Amino acid sequence: MAEYMESLALLTEQFRRLPGVGRRSATRMAFAVLDMSDEEAALFAQTVLEAKAKIHPCPICGNLTDRDRCGICADPERDGSVICVVEDVRTLLAMEKVREYRGIYHVLGGLISPMKGRTPDSINLRSLLTRVGTVEDENGAPCAVKEVILALGATVEGDATAMYIGKLLAPFGIRVTRLAYGIPVGSDLEYADEVTLFRALQGRTGI
Amino acid sequence: MAEYMESLALLTEQFRRLPGVGRRSATRMAFAVLDMSDEEAALFAQTVLEAKAKIHPCPICGNLTDRDRCGICADPERDGSVICVVEDVRTLLAMEKVREYRGIYHVLGGLISPMKGRTPDSINLRSLLTRVGTVEDENGAPCAVKEVILALGATVEGDATAMYIGKLLAPFGIRVTRLAYGIPVGSDLEYADEVTLFRALQGRTGI
Repeated sequence: MAEYMESLALLTEQFRRLPGVGRRSATRMAFAVLDMSDEEAALFAQTVLEAKAKIHPCPICGNLTDRDRCGICADPERDGSVICVVEDVRTLLAMEKVREYRGIYHVLGGLISPMKGRTPDSINLRSLLTRVGTVEDENGAPCAVKEVILALGATVEGDATAMYIGKLLAPFGIRVTRLAYGIPVGSDLEYADEVTLFRALQGRTGI
Repeated sequence: MAEYMESLALLTEQFRRLPGVGRRSATRMAFAVLDMSDEEAALFAQTVLEAKAKIHPCPICGNLTDRDRCGICADPERDGSVICVVEDVRTLLAMEKVREYRGIYHVLGGLISPMKGRTPDSINLRSLLTRVGTVEDENGAPCAVKEVILALGATVEGDATAMYIGKLLAPFGIRVTRLAYGIPVGSDLEYADEVTLFRALQGRTGI
Protein backbone atom coordinates (compact mmCIF):
# COMPACT_ATOMS: atom_id res chain seq x y z
CA MET A 1 0.00 0.00 0.00
CA ALA A 2 2.86 2.29 0.95
CA GLU A 3 3.75 3.43 -2.54
CA TYR A 4 0.58 5.35 -3.26
CA MET A 5 -0.28 6.62 0.21
CA GLU A 6 2.82 8.68 0.76
CA SER A 7 0.98 11.88 1.71
CA LEU A 8 -1.08 9.91 4.22
CA ALA A 9 2.00 8.23 5.67
CA LEU A 10 3.70 11.61 6.04
CA LEU A 11 0.64 13.04 7.76
CA THR A 12 0.44 10.05 10.12
CA GLU A 13 4.12 10.54 10.93
CA GLN A 14 3.48 14.19 11.83
CA PHE A 15 0.71 13.23 14.25
CA ARG A 16 2.93 10.55 15.82
CA ARG A 17 5.35 13.27 16.84
CA LEU A 18 2.72 14.72 19.18
CA PRO A 19 2.83 13.60 22.82
CA GLY A 20 0.76 10.53 23.72
CA VAL A 21 -0.01 9.64 20.11
CA GLY A 22 0.81 6.11 18.94
CA ARG A 23 0.58 4.54 15.51
CA ARG A 24 -3.14 3.74 15.69
CA SER A 25 -4.19 7.14 17.05
CA ALA A 26 -2.03 8.89 14.47
CA THR A 27 -3.69 6.92 11.67
CA ARG A 28 -7.15 7.79 13.00
CA MET A 29 -6.17 11.45 13.18
CA ALA A 30 -4.81 11.42 9.64
CA PHE A 31 -8.07 9.91 8.40
CA ALA A 32 -10.00 12.51 10.39
CA VAL A 33 -8.09 15.20 8.49
CA LEU A 34 -9.05 13.56 5.18
CA ASP A 35 -12.67 13.51 6.36
CA MET A 36 -12.56 17.26 7.00
CA SER A 37 -13.78 19.71 4.39
CA ASP A 38 -11.05 21.65 2.56
CA GLU A 39 -11.92 24.74 4.64
CA GLU A 40 -11.63 22.84 7.92
CA ALA A 41 -8.25 21.35 7.00
CA ALA A 42 -7.01 24.78 5.90
CA LEU A 43 -8.20 26.28 9.20
CA PHE A 44 -6.41 23.52 11.11
CA ALA A 45 -3.11 24.17 9.33
CA GLN A 46 -3.57 27.93 9.62
CA THR A 47 -4.20 27.72 13.37
CA VAL A 48 -0.97 25.77 13.88
CA LEU A 49 1.02 28.40 11.99
CA GLU A 50 -0.68 31.33 13.71
CA ALA A 51 -0.23 29.97 17.22
CA LYS A 52 3.41 29.29 16.45
CA ALA A 53 3.94 32.74 14.94
CA LYS A 54 2.06 34.74 17.58
CA ILE A 55 2.98 33.02 20.83
CA HIS A 56 6.38 33.66 22.38
CA PRO A 57 7.83 33.78 25.90
CA CYS A 58 7.06 36.86 28.00
CA PRO A 59 10.34 38.85 28.16
CA ILE A 60 9.81 39.42 31.88
CA CYS A 61 8.78 36.07 33.34
CA GLY A 62 9.04 33.50 30.53
CA ASN A 63 5.31 32.71 30.50
CA LEU A 64 3.75 32.34 27.03
CA THR A 65 2.08 35.35 25.48
CA ASP A 66 1.08 36.91 22.17
CA ARG A 67 1.60 40.47 23.47
CA ASP A 68 4.71 42.41 24.55
CA ARG A 69 4.35 41.05 28.09
CA CYS A 70 2.17 38.25 29.46
CA GLY A 71 -1.29 38.72 30.97
CA ILE A 72 -0.01 38.12 34.49
CA CYS A 73 2.92 40.55 34.27
CA ALA A 74 0.58 43.12 32.68
CA ASP A 75 -2.12 42.69 35.34
CA PRO A 76 -1.96 45.59 37.87
CA GLU A 77 -3.94 43.47 40.33
CA ARG A 78 -1.11 40.98 40.74
CA ASP A 79 1.28 41.39 43.64
CA GLY A 80 4.74 42.08 42.21
CA SER A 81 6.43 41.51 45.58
CA VAL A 82 5.93 37.73 45.42
CA ILE A 83 7.54 35.69 42.64
CA CYS A 84 6.60 32.05 42.18
CA VAL A 85 9.36 30.10 40.41
CA VAL A 86 8.06 27.25 38.21
CA GLU A 87 9.70 24.74 35.90
CA ASP A 88 7.54 25.41 32.84
CA VAL A 89 4.35 27.03 31.59
CA ARG A 90 2.34 23.85 32.28
CA THR A 91 3.16 24.21 35.98
CA LEU A 92 2.28 27.89 35.82
CA LEU A 93 -1.15 27.03 34.39
CA ALA A 94 -1.65 24.40 37.13
CA MET A 95 -0.86 27.03 39.79
CA GLU A 96 -3.24 29.51 38.16
CA LYS A 97 -6.07 26.96 38.32
CA VAL A 98 -5.87 27.08 42.13
CA ARG A 99 -7.07 30.72 41.87
CA GLU A 100 -5.41 31.43 45.20
CA TYR A 101 -2.05 32.84 44.16
CA ARG A 102 -2.02 36.55 43.33
CA GLY A 103 1.71 37.11 42.88
CA ILE A 104 3.72 36.91 39.67
CA TYR A 105 5.83 34.13 38.15
CA HIS A 106 9.24 33.19 36.90
CA VAL A 107 9.46 30.33 34.40
CA LEU A 108 12.80 28.48 34.51
CA GLY A 109 12.28 26.45 31.34
CA GLY A 110 13.87 23.39 32.94
CA LEU A 111 15.49 22.11 36.12
CA ILE A 112 19.13 21.70 37.05
CA SER A 113 20.18 18.12 36.32
CA PRO A 114 23.85 17.09 36.27
CA MET A 115 22.72 13.67 35.02
CA LYS A 116 21.13 15.20 31.93
CA GLY A 117 23.84 17.82 31.56
CA ARG A 118 21.56 20.74 32.47
CA THR A 119 23.65 23.25 34.37
CA PRO A 120 22.33 26.33 36.20
CA ASP A 121 23.43 28.38 33.17
CA SER A 122 21.19 26.44 30.79
CA ILE A 123 17.97 27.48 32.56
CA ASN A 124 16.41 30.91 32.95
CA LEU A 125 18.08 31.74 36.28
CA ARG A 126 20.21 34.80 35.60
CA SER A 127 17.13 36.91 34.85
CA LEU A 128 15.59 35.85 38.18
CA LEU A 129 18.50 37.51 39.97
CA THR A 130 17.98 40.68 37.93
CA ARG A 131 14.25 40.63 38.66
CA VAL A 132 14.68 40.25 42.39
CA GLY A 133 16.27 43.68 42.36
CA THR A 134 14.14 45.46 39.78
CA VAL A 135 10.49 44.38 39.93
CA GLU A 136 8.20 47.37 39.36
CA ASP A 137 4.77 48.00 40.81
CA GLU A 138 1.76 49.11 38.72
CA ASN A 139 3.04 52.70 38.59
CA GLY A 140 6.44 51.66 37.31
CA ALA A 141 8.08 52.36 40.66
CA PRO A 142 10.64 49.84 41.92
CA CYS A 143 8.98 47.31 44.19
CA ALA A 144 11.10 45.17 46.45
CA VAL A 145 10.50 41.45 46.13
CA LYS A 146 9.55 40.13 49.55
CA GLU A 147 9.21 36.46 48.81
CA VAL A 148 10.25 33.89 46.24
CA ILE A 149 8.12 30.73 46.29
CA LEU A 150 9.74 27.69 44.68
CA ALA A 151 6.97 25.60 43.12
CA LEU A 152 9.20 22.82 41.80
CA GLY A 153 8.52 19.09 41.55
CA ALA A 154 9.24 16.81 44.50
CA THR A 155 12.02 15.10 42.53
CA VAL A 156 15.79 14.94 42.78
CA GLU A 157 16.05 17.61 40.08
CA GLY A 158 13.39 19.77 41.76
CA ASP A 159 15.25 19.50 45.08
CA ALA A 160 18.62 20.30 43.52
CA THR A 161 17.21 23.33 41.70
CA ALA A 162 15.42 24.56 44.82
CA MET A 163 18.57 24.26 46.90
CA TYR A 164 20.65 26.06 44.26
CA ILE A 165 18.17 28.94 43.99
CA GLY A 166 17.97 29.13 47.79
CA LYS A 167 21.74 29.68 48.01
CA LEU A 168 21.69 32.09 45.08
CA LEU A 169 19.04 34.30 46.72
CA ALA A 170 20.46 34.15 50.25
CA PRO A 171 22.50 37.40 49.84
CA PHE A 172 19.31 39.33 48.94
CA GLY A 173 17.86 38.69 52.39
CA ILE A 174 14.38 37.90 51.06
CA ARG A 175 12.09 35.08 52.14
CA VAL A 176 12.52 31.95 50.00
CA THR A 177 9.91 29.23 50.51
CA ARG A 178 8.85 26.08 48.74
CA LEU A 179 5.57 24.21 48.47
CA ALA A 180 4.75 21.85 51.32
CA TYR A 181 5.43 18.16 50.94
CA GLY A 182 2.74 15.89 52.31
CA ILE A 183 -0.13 13.52 51.81
CA PRO A 184 -2.14 14.31 48.66
CA VAL A 185 -5.67 15.42 49.54
CA GLY A 186 -8.18 12.59 49.25
CA SER A 187 -5.62 9.81 49.42
CA ASP A 188 -5.47 7.04 51.99
CA LEU A 189 -2.52 6.98 54.39
CA GLU A 190 -1.93 3.27 53.85
CA TYR A 191 -1.06 3.88 50.19
CA ALA A 192 1.40 6.72 50.87
CA ASP A 193 5.08 5.86 50.38
CA GLU A 194 7.54 6.15 53.27
CA VAL A 195 9.31 9.24 51.94
CA THR A 196 6.04 11.15 51.55
CA LEU A 197 4.95 10.08 55.03
CA PHE A 198 8.30 11.13 56.47
CA ARG A 199 8.04 14.55 54.81
CA ALA A 200 4.43 14.91 55.92
CA LEU A 201 5.51 14.16 59.50
CA GLN A 202 8.36 16.67 59.29
CA GLY A 203 6.01 19.31 57.98
CA ARG A 204 3.23 18.66 60.49
CA THR A 205 1.29 21.76 61.55
CA GLY A 206 -0.78 22.64 64.60
CA ILE A 207 -4.57 22.51 64.30
CA MET B 1 -5.58 33.63 31.42
CA ALA B 2 -7.96 33.37 28.50
CA GLU B 3 -7.58 36.91 27.22
CA TYR B 4 -3.96 36.65 26.13
CA MET B 5 -3.80 33.02 25.09
CA GLU B 6 -6.36 33.15 22.29
CA SER B 7 -4.08 31.58 19.65
CA LEU B 8 -3.28 28.76 22.06
CA ALA B 9 -6.96 28.23 22.89
CA LEU B 10 -7.81 28.09 19.18
CA LEU B 11 -5.04 25.57 18.56
CA THR B 12 -6.19 23.41 21.48
CA GLU B 13 -9.71 23.53 20.06
CA GLN B 14 -8.45 22.31 16.68
CA PHE B 15 -6.71 19.32 18.29
CA ARG B 16 -9.84 18.49 20.29
CA ARG B 17 -11.70 17.97 17.02
CA LEU B 18 -9.48 14.96 16.28
CA PRO B 19 -10.81 11.54 17.28
CA GLY B 20 -9.88 10.32 20.76
CA VAL B 21 -8.44 13.68 21.87
CA GLY B 22 -9.80 15.21 25.09
CA ARG B 23 -9.08 18.56 26.70
CA ARG B 24 -5.88 17.47 28.43
CA SER B 25 -4.39 15.72 25.40
CA ALA B 26 -5.31 18.66 23.18
CA THR B 27 -3.52 21.06 25.55
CA ARG B 28 -0.42 18.84 25.57
CA MET B 29 -0.46 18.71 21.77
CA ALA B 30 -0.82 22.48 21.49
CA PHE B 31 2.17 22.93 23.81
CA ALA B 32 4.09 20.39 21.75
CA VAL B 33 3.49 22.56 18.69
CA LEU B 34 4.82 25.60 20.55
CA ASP B 35 7.89 23.54 21.52
CA MET B 36 8.56 22.75 17.85
CA SER B 37 10.97 24.84 15.82
CA ASP B 38 9.38 27.18 13.27
CA GLU B 39 10.41 24.80 10.49
CA GLU B 40 8.84 21.80 12.22
CA ALA B 41 5.55 23.62 12.79
CA ALA B 42 5.51 24.80 9.18
CA LEU B 43 6.15 21.24 7.99
CA PHE B 44 3.32 20.00 10.19
CA ALA B 45 0.85 22.50 8.73
CA GLN B 46 2.14 21.91 5.22
CA THR B 47 1.72 18.14 5.53
CA VAL B 48 -1.92 18.55 6.57
CA LEU B 49 -2.62 20.73 3.55
CA GLU B 50 -0.74 18.49 1.13
CA ALA B 51 -2.39 15.27 2.29
CA LYS B 52 -5.78 16.96 2.01
CA ALA B 53 -5.01 18.35 -1.45
CA LYS B 54 -3.42 15.23 -2.93
CA ILE B 55 -5.51 12.39 -1.55
CA HIS B 56 -8.91 11.68 -3.10
CA PRO B 57 -11.09 8.59 -3.62
CA CYS B 58 -10.09 6.19 -6.43
CA PRO B 59 -12.70 6.71 -9.19
CA ILE B 60 -12.94 2.93 -9.63
CA CYS B 61 -13.21 1.45 -6.14
CA GLY B 62 -13.43 4.39 -3.72
CA ASN B 63 -10.14 3.59 -1.97
CA LEU B 64 -7.94 6.59 -1.17
CA THR B 65 -5.21 7.52 -3.62
CA ASP B 66 -3.08 10.42 -4.82
CA ARG B 67 -2.95 9.07 -8.41
CA ASP B 68 -5.62 8.66 -11.09
CA ARG B 69 -6.48 5.22 -9.74
CA CYS B 70 -5.52 3.54 -6.48
CA GLY B 71 -2.53 1.22 -6.01
CA ILE B 72 -4.74 -1.86 -5.83
CA CYS B 73 -6.80 -1.09 -8.94
CA ALA B 74 -3.57 -0.24 -10.80
CA ASP B 75 -1.79 -3.44 -9.68
CA PRO B 76 -1.84 -6.01 -12.53
CA GLU B 77 -1.13 -8.77 -9.99
CA ARG B 78 -4.52 -8.34 -8.33
CA ASP B 79 -7.36 -10.61 -9.38
CA GLY B 80 -10.08 -8.46 -10.95
CA SER B 81 -12.61 -11.28 -10.85
CA VAL B 82 -13.07 -11.03 -7.08
CA ILE B 83 -14.42 -7.84 -5.52
CA CYS B 84 -14.35 -7.39 -1.75
CA VAL B 85 -17.00 -4.92 -0.59
CA VAL B 86 -15.99 -2.91 2.52
CA GLU B 87 -17.61 -0.13 4.50
CA ASP B 88 -14.66 2.27 4.45
CA VAL B 89 -10.96 2.63 3.75
CA ARG B 90 -10.08 1.68 7.34
CA THR B 91 -11.65 -1.76 6.75
CA LEU B 92 -9.83 -2.03 3.43
CA LEU B 93 -6.51 -1.39 5.19
CA ALA B 94 -7.39 -4.02 7.83
CA MET B 95 -8.10 -6.56 5.06
CA GLU B 96 -4.83 -5.69 3.31
CA LYS B 97 -2.90 -6.38 6.50
CA VAL B 98 -3.98 -10.04 6.31
CA ARG B 99 -1.85 -10.27 3.11
CA GLU B 100 -4.04 -13.15 1.97
CA TYR B 101 -6.57 -11.42 -0.26
CA ARG B 102 -5.42 -10.84 -3.84
CA GLY B 103 -8.66 -9.54 -5.37
CA ILE B 104 -9.81 -5.93 -5.67
CA TYR B 105 -12.10 -3.79 -3.52
CA HIS B 106 -15.23 -1.71 -3.52
CA VAL B 107 -15.57 0.92 -0.80
CA LEU B 108 -19.20 1.73 0.10
CA GLY B 109 -18.45 4.81 2.20
CA GLY B 110 -21.11 3.79 4.73
CA LEU B 111 -23.74 1.17 5.51
CA ILE B 112 -27.48 1.16 4.93
CA SER B 113 -29.22 2.33 8.10
CA PRO B 114 -32.92 3.31 8.10
CA MET B 115 -32.44 4.47 11.72
CA LYS B 116 -29.78 6.98 10.70
CA GLY B 117 -31.53 7.85 7.45
CA ARG B 118 -28.87 6.25 5.25
CA THR B 119 -30.63 4.73 2.26
CA PRO B 120 -29.06 2.46 -0.39
CA ASP B 121 -28.82 5.54 -2.63
CA SER B 122 -26.67 7.42 -0.12
CA ILE B 123 -23.82 4.89 -0.28
CA ASN B 124 -21.57 3.96 -3.19
CA LEU B 125 -23.73 1.07 -4.44
CA ARG B 126 -24.75 2.05 -7.96
CA SER B 127 -21.15 1.93 -9.17
CA LEU B 128 -20.81 -1.59 -7.76
CA LEU B 129 -23.54 -2.73 -10.16
CA THR B 130 -21.73 -1.06 -13.04
CA ARG B 131 -18.44 -2.66 -12.03
CA VAL B 132 -19.85 -6.16 -11.80
CA GLY B 133 -20.47 -5.97 -15.54
CA THR B 134 -17.41 -4.05 -16.69
CA VAL B 135 -14.32 -4.99 -14.68
CA GLU B 136 -11.30 -5.14 -16.98
CA ASP B 137 -8.26 -7.38 -16.68
CA GLU B 138 -4.66 -6.14 -16.94
CA ASN B 139 -4.91 -5.96 -20.75
CA GLY B 140 -8.06 -3.85 -20.65
CA ALA B 141 -10.24 -6.78 -21.77
CA PRO B 142 -13.59 -7.22 -19.97
CA CYS B 143 -13.18 -9.64 -17.11
CA ALA B 144 -16.26 -11.25 -15.61
CA VAL B 145 -16.55 -10.84 -11.88
CA LYS B 146 -16.84 -14.31 -10.39
CA GLU B 147 -17.29 -13.46 -6.74
CA VAL B 148 -18.29 -10.57 -4.52
CA ILE B 149 -17.11 -10.94 -0.90
CA LEU B 150 -19.02 -8.82 1.60
CA ALA B 151 -16.57 -7.84 4.37
CA LEU B 152 -19.07 -5.88 6.45
CA GLY B 153 -19.34 -5.58 10.23
CA ALA B 154 -21.35 -8.10 12.22
CA THR B 155 -23.88 -5.43 13.15
CA VAL B 156 -27.53 -4.76 12.30
CA GLU B 157 -26.41 -2.26 9.67
CA GLY B 158 -23.79 -4.64 8.29
CA ASP B 159 -26.39 -7.41 8.05
CA ALA B 160 -28.96 -5.14 6.39
CA THR B 161 -26.42 -3.89 3.85
CA ALA B 162 -25.18 -7.42 3.13
CA MET B 163 -28.72 -8.67 2.56
CA TYR B 164 -29.55 -5.73 0.28
CA ILE B 165 -26.43 -6.22 -1.83
CA GLY B 166 -27.14 -9.97 -1.97
CA LYS B 167 -30.56 -9.32 -3.52
CA LEU B 168 -29.18 -6.62 -5.82
CA LEU B 169 -26.52 -8.95 -7.23
CA ALA B 170 -28.75 -12.04 -7.49
CA PRO B 171 -29.70 -11.35 -11.17
CA PHE B 172 -26.04 -11.37 -12.19
CA GLY B 173 -25.66 -15.00 -11.21
CA ILE B 174 -22.30 -14.48 -9.52
CA ARG B 175 -21.15 -15.90 -6.21
CA VAL B 176 -21.83 -13.58 -3.27
CA THR B 177 -20.20 -14.51 0.04
CA ARG B 178 -19.58 -12.87 3.37
CA LEU B 179 -16.94 -13.28 6.06
CA ALA B 180 -17.49 -16.09 8.55
CA TYR B 181 -18.98 -15.31 11.94
CA GLY B 182 -17.39 -17.11 14.84
CA ILE B 183 -15.17 -17.14 17.88
CA PRO B 184 -12.31 -14.63 17.64
CA VAL B 185 -8.96 -16.41 17.50
CA GLY B 186 -7.25 -16.53 20.88
CA SER B 187 -10.39 -15.85 22.91
CA ASP B 188 -11.85 -18.11 25.55
CA LEU B 189 -15.21 -19.73 24.86
CA GLU B 190 -16.57 -18.82 28.27
CA TYR B 191 -16.33 -15.11 27.43
CA ALA B 192 -18.09 -15.37 24.04
CA ASP B 193 -21.62 -13.95 23.93
CA GLU B 194 -24.58 -16.19 23.00
CA VAL B 195 -25.12 -14.70 19.56
CA THR B 196 -21.49 -15.24 18.57
CA LEU B 197 -21.60 -18.79 19.92
CA PHE B 198 -24.82 -19.47 18.01
CA ARG B 199 -23.31 -18.15 14.78
CA ALA B 200 -20.12 -20.12 15.38
CA LEU B 201 -22.21 -23.25 15.85
CA GLN B 202 -24.18 -22.56 12.68
CA GLY B 203 -20.98 -22.01 10.71
CA ARG B 204 -19.15 -25.07 12.09
CA THR B 205 -16.84 -26.79 9.63
CA GLY B 206 -15.43 -30.31 9.33
CA ILE B 207 -11.85 -30.93 10.48
